[in-house]
Amino acid sequence: MTADDVTDNSEGVCRPPAEVPASPPPPRPTAERVRDTRELLGREIDCWVATTDPATGAPHLVPLSFDWDGRAMLLSTGERSVAGRGLASGAGVRIGLGATRDVVMVDGSVEVVPTAALESAAADRFAQRTGFDPRETSGSYLFFRVVPSRIQAWREENELRGRDVMLDGRWIASDD
Amino acid sequence: MTADDVTDNSEGVCRPPAEVPASPPPPRPTAERVRDTRELLGREIDCWVATTDPATGAPHLVPLSFDWDGRAMLLSTGERSVAGRGLASGAGVRIGLGATRDVVMVDGSVEVVPTAALESAAADRFAQRTGFDPRETSGSYLFFRVVPSRIQAWREENELRGRDVMLDGRWIASDD
Repeated sequence: MTADDVTDNSEGVCRPPAEVPASPPPPRPTAERVRDTRELLGREIDCWVATTDPATGAPHLVPLSFDWDGRAMLLSTGERSVAGRGLASGAGVRIGLGATRDVVMVDGSVEVVPTAALESAAADRFAQRTGFDPRETSGSYLFFRVVPSRIQAWREENELRGRDVMLDGRWIASDD
Repeated sequence: MTADDVTDNSEGVCRPPAEVPASPPPPRPTAERVRDTRELLGREIDCWVATTDPATGAPHLVPLSFDWDGRAMLLSTGERSVAGRGLASGAGVRIGLGATRDVVMVDGSVEVVPTAALESAAADRFAQRTGFDPRETSGSYLFFRVVPSRIQAWREENELRGRDVMLDGRWIASDD
């Protein structure tokens, strides 16, 4: 068991009885979690974006809308914003999607894409999905393409084991 | 307008039309946001906790349960976990509560409280609320008391202005 396993298990057990079924459903197999995770990425519009403020090292968190193209999450925020500077800093990003009892956690690398440099189809899709077109902000906004390296998905404590659905950028295909 | 205002305004505009009312309700006055925020802190059980990994400077994010005593948020996680080490690092914490379209964002300082050092009443309340008693983990868990310094509350873009409901640890009493 890695330190990370200790980590996330120890982080996952705080669950109020009111919301924990008397007998929680059995943990989903990996293949089901992968399907659920891909479906959530395609359905959800907002996510919680955690970055590190490069000026202070302090954690930052803000809800942002995103578009998932099947391989990466496209975000946009102001280039001067704390989130924008954090996303551009190279310190990485960690993103939470879904409900706190049905989470998908994404760790990824960030590619900064000037609004004028993004393919029109992707920018159009982002604008349609989010109702906001960063191309109309005359350069004060940037796109950020988050390529997931690791994705985890769990509901209650009994799903902490086997919560990795992507490692090293590859979806885990089975429960092995 | 401070850089922070630029920040959060620029972060807040990504909103999909599907979820934005044709004519969004008028922004809540500060006093109403303060009431709503206190009510949410008392009602919610889970929150999104963003920290900085002291080992790497990378952002970390995890959902944790909490208890609000009217002045501070009490959290608990493993002392070896990434969140636990980040909370203890002195880099601060940023916590998101509620929905992405009705958010409360808390920036605060963190006090580490060994499980044996917390007053029994507070620890009992935490255990009852979260269904998890860190005192039974024989020292592998810690309590973390997050004292808010700044709290913001907003729904849609028209509430980004005036989103501060607490500054310097003081609730804002009016719209001045």
